[in-house]
Formats: sequence, C-alpha cells, structure tokens
Amino acid sequence: MSYQLYKEAMQSIADINYAAAVLQWDQETYMPAKGAERRGQQLATLAEIAHARFTDERIGNMLEDLLTNDKLTIEEKRNVTLSQQDYIRNKKIPSLFVKQQSEAITICFHAWIKSRKENDFSTFQKPLSHLIGLKQQEAEYLGYEGHPYDALMNDYDKGLTVAKADKLFGELQPQLQSIVDKATALEVDDSFLYNHYDKDKQWQLGLQVLAQMGYDFEAGRQDISEHPFTTNFSSQDVRVTTHTDENNFSAMLWSCIHEGGHALYEQGLPAQQYGLPLGEYNGLSIHESQSRIWENCIGRGLPYWKQNFAVVQQHFPQQLQGISLEHFYKAINKVKPSLIRINADELTYHQHVIIRYEIEKQLIEGSLSAADVPAVWNEMYKKRLGVIVPDDRSGCLQDVHWSHGSFGYFPTYSIGSLYAAQFYAAIKKVEPKLEEQIALGDFTRIHSWLAENVFRHGKFYSAEDLCKEATGEALNAAHFIQYAKAKFENLSKMSVVGLPS
Amino acid sequence: MSYQLYKEAMQSIADINYAAAVLQWDQETYMPAKGAERRGQQLATLAEIAHARFTDERIGNMLEDLLTNDKLTIEEKRNVTLSQQDYIRNKKIPSLFVKQQSEAITICFHAWIKSRKENDFSTFQKPLSHLIGLKQQEAEYLGYEGHPYDALMNDYDKGLTVAKADKLFGELQPQLQSIVDKATALEVDDSFLYNHYDKDKQWQLGLQVLAQMGYDFEAGRQDISEHPFTTNFSSQDVRVTTHTDENNFSAMLWSCIHEGGHALYEQGLPAQQYGLPLGEYNGLSIHESQSRIWENCIGRGLPYWKQNFAVVQQHFPQQLQGISLEHFYKAINKVKPSLIRINADELTYHQHVIIRYEIEKQLIEGSLSAADVPAVWNEMYKKRLGVIVPDDRSGCLQDVHWSHGSFGYFPTYSIGSLYAAQFYAAIKKVEPKLEEQIALGDFTRIHSWLAENVFRHGKFYSAEDLCKEATGEALNAAHFIQYAKAKFENLSKMSVVGLPS
Repeated sequence: MSYQLYKEAMQSIADINYAAAVLQWDQETYMPAKGAERRGQQLATLAEIAHARFTDERIGNMLEDLLTNDKLTIEEKRNVTLSQQDYIRNKKIPSLFVKQQSEAITICFHAWIKSRKENDFSTFQKPLSHLIGLKQQEAEYLGYEGHPYDALMNDYDKGLTVAKADKLFGELQPQLQSIVDKATALEVDDSFLYNHYDKDKQWQLGLQVLAQMGYDFEAGRQDISEHPFTTNFSSQDVRVTTHTDENNFSAMLWSCIHEGGHALYEQGLPAQQYGLPLGEYNGLSIHESQSRIWENCIGRGLPYWKQNFAVVQQHFPQQLQGISLEHFYKAINKVKPSLIRINADELTYHQHVIIRYEIEKQLIEGSLSAADVPAVWNEMYKKRLGVIVPDDRSGCLQDVHWSHGSFGYFPTYSIGSLYAAQFYAAIKKVEPKLEEQIALGDFTRIHSWLAENVFRHGKFYSAEDLCKEATGEALNAAHFIQYAKAKFENLSKMSVVGLPS
Repeated sequence: MSYQLYKEAMQSIADINYAAAVLQWDQETYMPAKGAERRGQQLATLAEIAHARFTDERIGNMLEDLLTNDKLTIEEKRNVTLSQQDYIRNKKIPSLFVKQQSEAITICFHAWIKSRKENDFSTFQKPLSHLIGLKQQEAEYLGYEGHPYDALMNDYDKGLTVAKADKLFGELQPQLQSIVDKATALEVDDSFLYNHYDKDKQWQLGLQVLAQMGYDFEAGRQDISEHPFTTNFSSQDVRVTTHTDENNFSAMLWSCIHEGGHALYEQGLPAQQYGLPLGEYNGLSIHESQSRIWENCIGRGLPYWKQNFAVVQQHFPQQLQGISLEHFYKAINKVKPSLIRINADELTYHQHVIIRYEIEKQLIEGSLSAADVPAVWNEMYKKRLGVIVPDDRSGCLQDVHWSHGSFGYFPTYSIGSLYAAQFYAAIKKVEPKLEEQIALGDFTRIHSWLAENVFRHGKFYSAEDLCKEATGEALNAAHFIQYAKAKFENLSKMSVVGLPS
C-alpha cells in the first residue's frame, strides 16, 4: 500500500467532513428557517458516510501495512500513526452505540432548549442523566488509566488527564484568587461601553481589526451568526462569524479578535497536508491558546490600544468623548465575578471553567447525579465567585455543551489561556521589543513566531511537546499568574485621566 | 425489498446531491477566492459517492424486485419506474467514460474562459472538438431511435427529439419572423432604463417583487452572484440569486421575476417526496416554462404594471419622472435583434436558441466540425437576425454551455416559452378575469393553477402528458404565436402619453 493511496483516502474523507462544515456554516448564517429539518438529515448522512469510510477494515489494514514500511519520512510516519490511533479509537466504539448516542444527543439538545426557555431544569434532567450514562459507557469502551473522565477529555486535548488538570488548576486557583480580590477592588466606570454603537460602524471596525491581525480575506470572510464561531473548509477557506450588539461595544470587538486568533491558526496550517493529521489543529487547548493570546495577552493589553484606541475613536467620536486611553484600558479590563461564563473577564473566567470541570468529573465518575447539579452549581458559584444564582437559566442551563454530550471540553478553555500566557512570555523573551511593535500596530513578529512554533506543525507534536519545543518548558500556570499579577498591579497604579463618563 | 428501503436509499443519495448544491451555491455567492481549489475537489468527491451509491448493483436489484410487487400505489410505482430508467441510463455509461468526460469538461471549461478572455476561438477549438467526440460516444452508449442528438436532449427534457423540436420550431419560425419585423418597426425611447438606479433600492424592489409573487422567504432567500440562478436543497430551502447593475434597470428586475418563477416551482414540489422522482421537477422545459410565464406572460404584460408601475415609481421617482405607464410598458417590450442571447427580447430570443440548436445537431451528427462553428454562427446571425458578429466573444464564445458539455440544453429555453404561453392561455380560459386580478397584484389564481397542474406532480407525468392534462392539448407553437401577435399588435396601437425622456 503506498502512502499516496492513504493520502487520497484521508483526503476524500476530509472532503466529506468539510462539505458537512459548509452545511453547518450555512445553517448558522444564512439558512432559512424551514430548511432546518432536511439539513439535519443531510448532515447525518454525510457524517454516516465519513464514519463508514474511515472505519472500513481496508483502512485499518492499509494503516498497518504502511507502518511496516520503513521508507516513510518522519512526517509521513507521524500522519499514519495518528490516523491509526484515531482508527483504533473509532473501532472501539460499536456503530450501534454511536447511533444511540447521536439520538440521545438530539433528544438532550431539544430538552435543553425547552428547559432553558422555560427555566425549568426538570425537563433536562432525565435526558441529561441518560446521556451521562452513555458517556460513562463510552469512557469504558475507550479505556483509561487513571480516571474515566480522562478518556473523554482526550477527544478535545489528547493526553490531558484529571491528574494533569488537577495539578494545573491547583497551581492556578489560590494565586488567582488573590489577584481577583485586588482587581475587583479597583474602581472603574465602564458605562461608556454600553452607549449606542452603530452596527455598521462596528462591522467596519471588526473587519479592520481582523485585517490588522493578518487575517487573509482572500482565504476567508466574516459573517453574522447568533453565536460567533470559526470554521474552515481547508486552510484556504477559513471563516469567522460575529454578532453585534448596539448597546454593548465589547460584544463584537472581542469576538472578532478571539475568532480572528482561531482563524489565523487555521489559515496557517500547512495546505499541502490537507485532510491529514499534520494539516489539522493540534487540539482544542492549543486552538484556544491562539484565540486567547490575541484576545487577552494582546487585545486587552495597553500596547495594543496605544495604536488602536485612536482608530476606535475615529469610528465612535461621540461615544468615546472625554474617555482617555487609560480609562478605556481600565474599562475593558474590569474584573467582576458574575454569573455567565461567556461574559466573564479573563480572570474570573477560570473559576467558571473549574466549576464545570469539577462537576463533570463527578458526573462521569458517578459521585454526582444529574438531579443534584443545580444545587451543587449554585453552591459553588456562591462559594467560589461570591454570586447568587437566581435561576437555572443563569446557572447550570447556560451552556450548550452538556446537551451536545461534550464532557471534557470546558477544561480546554482555561488550559488554552495558560498556554497563551506561556507562549506570550516566550515571544517576549526572544523579542524584547515586542510590545513596542504592537504599539505601532505591527504584529509580524507575533505572527511569524506562532507560524514557526505552532501553525506549521499541525498535529506533529502532542500539545505538551509542542509547548516544550516552543517555550523550553512544560505547561504550567506560573506564566499566567505572572502575567495577570503584573497587569493588574500596573492597572491599580494607573490613574484615569479625563472626565468621568 | 420494501418501498421504505428504496425511499431511504434514494433520500440518502439526495442528501449527498443537495449537500453538493449547498457547496455550489456558496461557491457562487460567498466563497473567498482561494477556497476554489479544494472546493472543486470536495464537489468531485460528493459526486463520485452519489454516483457510486446509485449505480450499485444492489440498487438495480432492489428496483427490479420492487417492480414485481403489485402492492405499490400508482405514485410509488411511478417513482420506482423512473428511478429504474435513471439507473439503466447510468449503467449504460462506463465509469471510466464518466471520468474521461469529466476531465475533458474541466479542460474545455478552462479553455473557454481563456479563449473568451483573449477573444480567440482557436484555444477553444481542440478541447471542444474532443468533447464533441465524447458526446457523440455518449449518445451511442445511451442509444436512440431517430437522431443521436435525441439521446443528449433527453438529459434535459425526457422524450424530446429532433423530430419534435424541428416540428415546433418549424411552426414557430416563419410566423415569428413577421411579428418580429412589425415589432422592430415600433419606435420607442427606452433610454430612461439606463439612468442611474441605486443598488440598494433595486434590491429592496426585488425582494418586494418576489414576495408579491408568493415566494416564501422562510423557505428561501435571495443573494448576489455574478450570474443569477435558482437552486434548492429541499422544497423547503429554495434559493435565488440576482445581480444588480446600477446603469441598467432591467438587469435585476427580470432576473428576480425569472428566478422567482423557477423558485415557486421548486417550493411547490411535494415535500414528502423529497429525493424521489415525484418530488423533483419535471424537466428543464417545464422548469423554464415557470420562469418564462412569470417573466414574459405576466411580468412583461400591461396588467402586471397597472399595479406595479406605481411601486417602481415610488422607488425611483426621479429616474421615472415624466414616464407614463404606456411608455414604460413599451420600453420594457422593445424588440431589437441583437448579438447576445441573455439580453435578447422575448421574440428574438427564440432565434438565438434555434441557431444553437441547429449547430448542435450538426456537431453531434458529425456534419459540422468545431473549427467551422464561428463561420456558421456568424452567417446564421447575419441571415436570421440581421446582425453582424464583430468577434467570437460576442459570437459563438458567449455561452458557457458547450464548455460544460451541455449539448441539448438550449432547446429547452424556447420550448419552455412555448409551454408558458400555452399554460397562460389555459389559465385565462378557466379564469376570464385573470388579468384584472393581476392588475390588482393578486396572483393567487395563477399560483393555485400552477400548483394544481404543474408543481404537485413532480415527474409523475412526462412533459408532454403534463401539458395535455393541464391544457387539454399537445404542446404546439400556436399559443405563443397568438400571444405574441396580440401583444405586439396592441403595442403598435398604443400611443405613448407623456414627455419624451
């Protein structure tokens, strides 16, 4: 079996999966309401075909044959090895189970919608409980060494385990708490962010921000969707979506920068490895590191706004009248414990994630039942964030993830931020003038470092090894803590010049 | 084999084909430039899968078994029979030949682009000649009784033959010529149509026109593309595209009405027959009848503008200042022999089609070679339309069809117009007040007649039988001739009130 045949087989499976991604993109952006029913069926058919093709015995045999072939290059061998791991993982789960789980997810998702709409957890409880049972079963099929939840986290970040996550969050949490306490004490009036900001002007600004980051509009485009996301149909067609809120300036701005970070990663993946593991993103933690390095380390930094505050002022002179750069910078970095994860600041965000992580762990190991989730959730929010959850809609019903069966996804958000801070520190180390460059709107060095150390590798390294290769050390929470500490200390020393708005 | 299994197999093939249609729609509307290469490959993969699934021996056996099952309803039997015809047709053509032809088309299409750009037929000649050879071969594979071109026309209008088309065009042509001669003699100043018409206002007008026709925007949407088209991903998701030209008011208006007619047909097909022949359009001639009945019989009629001229005037008061309804009506019906088919008026349009039809017939029977096309084309345009073709770009290189291998497609444009006129006459017969209703903007009766007599049948009847069932007689050119004669006689009597523009 030649490598060429393997490549063709993988690429034709990728063609099907990317076709499905086009259908999903359309579903979220332009599809008329009545198109939904058949679209669901069309997506199911494509998923079934891709799955059947990939789990065909002939693929298994081809992969095995290829691995005995010593003429493969290192990259080729890595591709085949990763495909084989994926193949074996897929074969561990019976087709009938895949179908059962997919049906359970459909039921659970609709129950979640209803439950959320009616602010009534009880509708969601039974389907959720059933789905958790299936996820426990899935973990058994897949196998694990330490904790059953390891098997599930692996789908999103290969190699991530409860032991590792516990260690990272254990390092992070106590120190983070003291930074949060100080940051929360800072007083800043951010009400000007909730003035009226014209939709079309926000849109224009968003495009400008993306272009400045280096997003290639000939290999992508931005559209509107209810929830912002990034998707791609090859590294030459990487699309971002955003949403605008005329009464909240932050909504679109951060989603453009965040999705832009994801998109730069996808655009930077090696095009010639289309459909092969080395042409695909490393994992969700590394993917999130790319959005977070832009959103937080760069986008919420003072250097970034030295250049861009004037641009924003040009777009919105009235709304920002009398607001100084320092005031703006303080406002966009306001820290305040709150109820909703997706609106959280970059510090308390971790707490939202850790709460979900701990609940998921317990659900999967069976020490917590679905019925007890609301009570445990509310208690954790009170204890860790000091906020009272008024109802389940603003509590444990706020995220879609569980209804999609995505257990093990949340931790990658926090871990992505830790990677981001570690990468950012590494770039600053080799490029001491980095922040002066950012202050001039010059991102070439960031871009080239990320391309060299992250983008071009695809899945060649594990996330852990990628981090070691790129930064010289294993992932740890120290860089994030150092970054956050320095940032909020500086912020506390900064006096806001200008009129109070 | 149960009918249910057949239905599921056909619907999953339809899922793949409709997924491909979404990718094509995206390609024409939103896809960034660099996405093109992989998109082509993704489409090829989907086409290959759909073809392999449909031509699988198991499908053939299933169809044969089902046809010996006398428990099928008439509709079910018709579905299975049509699927079997399609299956047999597909099996007649070797897979290798399909691949060869597909490659030849890719080469021919790119040659056409280049040839057209450089206004040099010689680049196109060789690949065209090769493709014609393959089409001749295809006709032999498919088989035919009369003329080899019959086998190709069948792909677009099942049952259409050279004998039938010759007869129809033979009836049409001499009478049409005398109407054209009189209509051309009418003087009308239509220069106001080429004033500046704001793009956004045209867009709003277009949406209003579609909504008034009964187009369901919850089951479709309009977007911009270079060439207007209609596509669908189910009868619940039928999309139209248009283009705007700020210096030509006609461009977008007629494309909205034309594509709207196609779209109403697709939205009216029976949803429960998704993926089955009875859920699909009859053929291209009947499809074209739906766009033409709206574009010409209704949209270029005086009753339509009795209501809508005021609407257009509201959108464009300055551009239409001093233009009377009669003047507008005359201008949009100006007849003038010209070079380009897609810009032709509804009378001389037929001549463009018949010229192509005759050239195609000769190419396929082998009595004309590709090399001689430009000379024959130019001679026919001079003789039949009285226009001098200045170069091949405005001549035989103007249409994409041949480069796509679509020989036998053109005749359906003219035949569609003949069906349209015959349907329109039939509606007027049962609804003598039809044009009074149209003049009030009320299209319910047209809609219900088309739904009852055309939409709901899908492919149940052949085009010929559908016409007989709907109008009580076989398709003939008399209704079109009568319609055109009456219209242009009335136009010649009409004096234009108002200032000359």
